[in-house]
Amino acid sequence: MASFDFQGKSIYYEEYGQGKPLLVLNGIMMSCKSWAEFVEPFSQSNRLILLDFLDQGRSARMDGPYDQAIQAEVTLALLDHLGIDRACVLGISYGGEVALRFAIGHPQRVERLMLFNTTARTGPWLGDIGDAWNLASGDADAYYLTTIPVIYSPAFYREQQDWMAKRRETLRPVFGDPNFIQPMIRLTNSARSYDVTDRLGEIQAPTLIVSCQQDYLTPMEEQQLLHQRIPNSHYVVIPGSGHASMYEQPMLFAALALGFCNTSKAEYHIT
Amino acid sequence: MASFDFQGKSIYYEEYGQGKPLLVLNGIMMSCKSWAEFVEPFSQSNRLILLDFLDQGRSARMDGPYDQAIQAEVTLALLDHLGIDRACVLGISYGGEVALRFAIGHPQRVERLMLFNTTARTGPWLGDIGDAWNLASGDADAYYLTTIPVIYSPAFYREQQDWMAKRRETLRPVFGDPNFIQPMIRLTNSARSYDVTDRLGEIQAPTLIVSCQQDYLTPMEEQQLLHQRIPNSHYVVIPGSGHASMYEQPMLFAALALGFCNTSKAEYHIT
Amino acid sequence: MASFDFQGKSIYYEEYGQGKPLLVLNGIMMSCKSWAEFVEPFSQSNRLILLDFLDQGRSARMDGPYDQAIQAEVTLALLDHLGIDRACVLGISYGGEVALRFAIGHPQRVERLMLFNTTARTGPWLGDIGDAWNLASGDADAYYLTTIPVIYSPAFYREQQDWMAKRRETLRPVFGDPNFIQPMIRLTNSARSYDVTDRLGEIQAPTLIVSCQQDYLTPMEEQQLLHQRIPNSHYVVIPGSGHASMYEQPMLFAALALGFCNTSKAEYHIT
Amino acid sequence: MASFDFQGKSIYYEEYGQGKPLLVLNGIMMSCKSWAEFVEPFSQSNRLILLDFLDQGRSARMDGPYDQAIQAEVTLALLDHLGIDRACVLGISYGGEVALRFAIGHPQRVERLMLFNTTARTGPWLGDIGDAWNLASGDADAYYLTTIPVIYSPAFYREQQDWMAKRRETLRPVFGDPNFIQPMIRLTNSARSYDVTDRLGEIQAPTLIVSCQQDYLTPMEEQQLLHQRIPNSHYVVIPGSGHASMYEQPMLFAALALGFCNTSKAEYHIT
Repeated sequence: MASFDFQGKSIYYEEYGQGKPLLVLNGIMMSCKSWAEFVEPFSQSNRLILLDFLDQGRSARMDGPYDQAIQAEVTLALLDHLGIDRACVLGISYGGEVALRFAIGHPQRVERLMLFNTTARTGPWLGDIGDAWNLASGDADAYYLTTIPVIYSPAFYREQQDWMAKRRETLRPVFGDPNFIQPMIRLTNSARSYDVTDRLGEIQAPTLIVSCQQDYLTPMEEQQLLHQRIPNSHYVVIPGSGHASMYEQPMLFAALALGFCNTSKAEYHIT
Repeated sequence: MASFDFQGKSIYYEEYGQGKPLLVLNGIMMSCKSWAEFVEPFSQSNRLILLDFLDQGRSARMDGPYDQAIQAEVTLALLDHLGIDRACVLGISYGGEVALRFAIGHPQRVERLMLFNTTARTGPWLGDIGDAWNLASGDADAYYLTTIPVIYSPAFYREQQDWMAKRRETLRPVFGDPNFIQPMIRLTNSARSYDVTDRLGEIQAPTLIVSCQQDYLTPMEEQQLLHQRIPNSHYVVIPGSGHASMYEQPMLFAALALGFCNTSKAEYHIT
Repeated sequence: MASFDFQGKSIYYEEYGQGKPLLVLNGIMMSCKSWAEFVEPFSQSNRLILLDFLDQGRSARMDGPYDQAIQAEVTLALLDHLGIDRACVLGISYGGEVALRFAIGHPQRVERLMLFNTTARTGPWLGDIGDAWNLASGDADAYYLTTIPVIYSPAFYREQQDWMAKRRETLRPVFGDPNFIQPMIRLTNSARSYDVTDRLGEIQAPTLIVSCQQDYLTPMEEQQLLHQRIPNSHYVVIPGSGHASMYEQPMLFAALALGFCNTSKAEYHIT
Repeated sequence: MASFDFQGKSIYYEEYGQGKPLLVLNGIMMSCKSWAEFVEPFSQSNRLILLDFLDQGRSARMDGPYDQAIQAEVTLALLDHLGIDRACVLGISYGGEVALRFAIGHPQRVERLMLFNTTARTGPWLGDIGDAWNLASGDADAYYLTTIPVIYSPAFYREQQDWMAKRRETLRPVFGDPNFIQPMIRLTNSARSYDVTDRLGEIQAPTLIVSCQQDYLTPMEEQQLLHQRIPNSHYVVIPGSGHASMYEQPMLFAALALGFCNTSKAEYHIT
């Protein structure tokens, strides 16, 4: 619906509703479109801002490799462009990584931070998974089978077989399209050296951390580490979900995000 | 702040704010006063209604034994008194039990149901704990030591030692007061035959079920049972909390309650 | 060390020590050699029998596709060949699947059953993972990156980086060798229609079920299902291990296996 | 069956079988008799040694308060009396605490250490529970209801109602007997200042740590702390058990104890 210029690249974003700004940062395979089901509830009491990162959705493609840090700069540029001083920032997976980079680099711009399925680092194990994705990128079926079972839980697969079958039909041409796959490879590589472990203590905003019990890509140990290191953090677990919590548990996803973002009070004095 | 007559007994309640009605049902030792820290956030966008059950707080005392079912009647009478057709109903512990009875008996009156630290039944084990409380009721220190470690997690004890020490000073005279202890015994006994296990399938409202990992009184297995049996239920776990989640994790308690109550959408069509 | 003929195919096995027979069934990528570190403790008080399934290690290769059921026939033939009436049967992963088939088909031949990292079925999700493996089989690096991160936990990766690097060097030529990869594809496909869910109730032997908390391939839900359905089953969880429990937690693996196999008593009358 | 003199007090112990010495240390309410069901399996391949601590079973009663440290001295005296240089030491609950004290004070006497339902410290929370027990000690029913639900899981209560009813009949006269209750109070108080947290790093023996998911008295967090701090420790969880793991899961209890004690190998070189 709108775009702005970032270092000569066009950045696509969408805005809905009015109220406390709520900025939502995509997972790696996502785009603004992925939030269609959430636009109504998320904009009911908030000014919702969706953003396609560089190499995502309708934002510009990059020409070569880059570091994920640039996506945090994009995020900052968007808030500046919109004249927003402070926003509640929600990130899932790759978007959670950018949210962490942004909250560390610009603490005064983050009112509250909501992290779903997020890790503080790309360790050797996650690095190998990224390499597996990239090696499978030449074949749409291989790419589907290498990425999708990692993202959805076995129970979701079992209970949503029709949806999964349709999703496979939808994704096959996408995964065979170099215009999608080449950016995916660059996005994957951009997180390769990601590690903010030692800077988590700098985060000042009240922070919600959400783990999912069947999350294979960013397992619960990763969020436990976030919770130990982020000073004012609050930690919950969704027992019945894989990595894609927004698809597997949309009602809990929305309730947690909106509840944490909009509750007027962040300090309680037990009496 | 207000009261109404229920079968010749005065029932005390409090009202704050405007918006979608949010009725909050107390745990066994609680009263309207226990929610002081939550009145502001809970009434920010909602019409908040607090209620003292029979034998609680400023509501009338009972003369002899009774069944917990009467508290669901009190709940119904309050909504009728206030002319509220449908409310979001939040219950914790004993209040969650009454909320379940109410949602089963009057499904059309419950818009959404939020259950914190709740069980579907008083089994033989929980029955023995109730008996232990009652046997300790003649001595304020024994009552404190029999009830309180069951309610708070070891970690909370360790991290809030000053608060716990003050709480003990506050509670000692209360636990020595027959005007508190005799009602507590009756309230405890009123739940003795409680078992709604076989009727959970009748609940129609979207339901949030919250477990706490260090909850000894109503352990996670109980909420897993609720989740299996309540059709449209959503289940989350707070890893760092004992039974009194509202005291141990007030920010998460508020975020979950308000997020689930106020999110405009309860049906998501994953796409 | 020895072999026998099964339907015209040579089946390789190894035997060590004396005592109650303990038959160990390999995971899909394993062979008798994989147990080198366990031969000494496992044969200290037991007659240890290791077995290469068809298409594994030094047993014969197959010519085309087959069903995993044949591996249970191989297992039976081996016990017959050795004149062993009843054995304790331990299986891990693919070997656990064969152990379940065998225990269902020949309950009188199983004294105790020990299942590590085992599922009762190849559901749609696990099927997709198998397909991903097969699609990656043309490239040694792709095969490594698609299979190995699924098998080892992130923590093991992090703590055993040198070992993992050496392992990659060792596995690269293996994964590039059609004599390994073609059998692997057939083994993978042989489990495609595996589902013993409805027959678990027939198992008579005392059964040990071991889950690992970071097991992605056969997550804990699968073993919980086994435990619910296998009558005389006992369930433990190793919190710090991925799918390859024998590599990640060898001391616990050995203690659980030998303790359960050799404890003289399987019925306790609490008094 | 036998006794020896410790500082003028008679210490009762029992011995069975031959082999590697396995010393078993009682929980607070237990005595040698409690192990009746385990004597056969535990002495099948081991020299089993059972011990009644001071103020337990058939050992001498104390005259006044004392520190739990004396029980570690009793343990040392017993090994000396029997001429045993090194033993595998198993402790449950109070016995686990003494086992930790002993392993810290006399590392060269412990070959392997097995800790069931054990904590490293009596924190303020556990202290309050001990006080609750002591305050209830004047009344057999109150003592039963204050101690027993804390020890057994809700599921065990539900599934073993007959056994629990019989147990209550058995325990009522015991809990009304000052010869049992006065020692129980002293034993409880003896652990009041127990805290070996800072010395756990000194333990040298391979150590097995067993948590039970419904253990309220010594919850899983306590064993996670033990596992973090004890260098050569191995950690497993029994999902279906309360504090009294030997009663709730005797087969797993025996398998874990004997497997860990008797496995010939404690160092594995993954290859």
